[in-house]
Amino acid sequence: MNKPLILVSNDDGVFASGLQMLISVAREFGEVFVVAPEKGESGMSHAISIVTPIRAKLIKKEEGLTVYSCNGTPVDCVKLALNQLMERKPDYVLSGINHGSNASISVIYSGTMGAAIEGCFNCIPSAGFSLLDHSPVADFSVSQKYVRIVLENLIKDGLPQGTCLNVNIPKLLEDEIKGIEVCRMTKGVWKEEYDKRTDPSGRNYYWLTGYFKNFEPDADDTDEWLLDKGYVTIVPIQVDLTAYDCIDRVKKWNLKK
Amino acid sequence: MNKPLILVSNDDGVFASGLQMLISVAREFGEVFVVAPEKGESGMSHAISIVTPIRAKLIKKEEGLTVYSCNGTPVDCVKLALNQLMERKPDYVLSGINHGSNASISVIYSGTMGAAIEGCFNCIPSAGFSLLDHSPVADFSVSQKYVRIVLENLIKDGLPQGTCLNVNIPKLLEDEIKGIEVCRMTKGVWKEEYDKRTDPSGRNYYWLTGYFKNFEPDADDTDEWLLDKGYVTIVPIQVDLTAYDCIDRVKKWNLKK
Repeated sequence: MNKPLILVSNDDGVFASGLQMLISVAREFGEVFVVAPEKGESGMSHAISIVTPIRAKLIKKEEGLTVYSCNGTPVDCVKLALNQLMERKPDYVLSGINHGSNASISVIYSGTMGAAIEGCFNCIPSAGFSLLDHSPVADFSVSQKYVRIVLENLIKDGLPQGTCLNVNIPKLLEDEIKGIEVCRMTKGVWKEEYDKRTDPSGRNYYWLTGYFKNFEPDADDTDEWLLDKGYVTIVPIQVDLTAYDCIDRVKKWNLKK
Repeated sequence: MNKPLILVSNDDGVFASGLQMLISVAREFGEVFVVAPEKGESGMSHAISIVTPIRAKLIKKEEGLTVYSCNGTPVDCVKLALNQLMERKPDYVLSGINHGSNASISVIYSGTMGAAIEGCFNCIPSAGFSLLDHSPVADFSVSQKYVRIVLENLIKDGLPQGTCLNVNIPKLLEDEIKGIEVCRMTKGVWKEEYDKRTDPSGRNYYWLTGYFKNFEPDADDTDEWLLDKGYVTIVPIQVDLTAYDCIDRVKKWNLKK
């Protein structure tokens, strides 16, 4: 049996240290093909380039490892890899290791998770990994152990079609991490407090700031709660957004044309 | 009681004809405050501007209508409106009318739906509207009737917290439309076929093309099926991506640290 072919991407860019760490673990398991943004694409969610064409640049090619940069979004990277750059469909899509949390509602804004979700749209078992440390020089050495555990299991058991994993790792030393928990996404929202400034021409501009508001801070089966208590969290993610509970309510509306 | 305050945005830009049509219906119901992208932002999904500041420009202010353009994404527009530009929290967030379908998986890529979903994150009843016609000069006159019906009901009944509506309208004449159906999101995927070209310098670039592949073409309770049969579709949307069915399976993995 051939070694697995693993597509790797991220949203912090092709030179981010988190990506290098993910590549090094992925190489233990198979042949690695990287297509990652040429610059930081944090917060790009599931965005795609429609009105501008994209380009890819070969950065490195050696035994078992091919690395491209791409001027598009993380989702563009995965699409271009699957449809143009790779000779065959990858067996797995991995994204990260992200510099910063993608727990709770952040999964929606995250380019890292956008790439992983695009993988599962295409029926490929996929996972995104994030370390709760925004520093560009964050220490990913502890994270590698948990990426390895998840990857071993992912390769052994796979995932149901249309499902991927959102894995978050607390910023802790190895002996401070209590274990790994599978859980659900926390309900919450980012409360924005824009930093309003005035440029030298007298015009206003706004920097996005803000804080996370947890709608269920005491729910012990959520990713935010478990991360706070020192656990690595795995949330299985699916992409049917239908609010099934709400269908009957809206069916009762007066919708006669 | 004050008239409702309605925030309106879109992803086709502040000068798109679909936006003007949505504004004109919204004004029948309340005071309208528009913050829309200064240029087309299709495919921007739930993207936000993190590394660049955003700006807003007042385009128009008259009795019952204020219009700003913003150089950010649709989600940036909603965030900036809620947090900086509006004097009070709006009662409703509406987005569209989009030039083109946002049925099935397109809801994930859509900037129009990104704006509506951002509204419901903030516990505001929200809806996105799309006409299945990509033309910049599409005829939105039939659509207005359906926007009006949905808005009447939305104002009367509201929506559960964290829920919004994805409304799609077929490109048909009024007497060809069979009615309105509340349904679920179709399972499917965009199959990409990039158009690979070579620029005058000899370097490759890629245009995104592609077609929609419906995974369940015979399912008569899905938006794609109903749109194809001539119905306006309403899919209630929620944003908890947890794949609950998959939690027990992953809990059985060997996740000991």
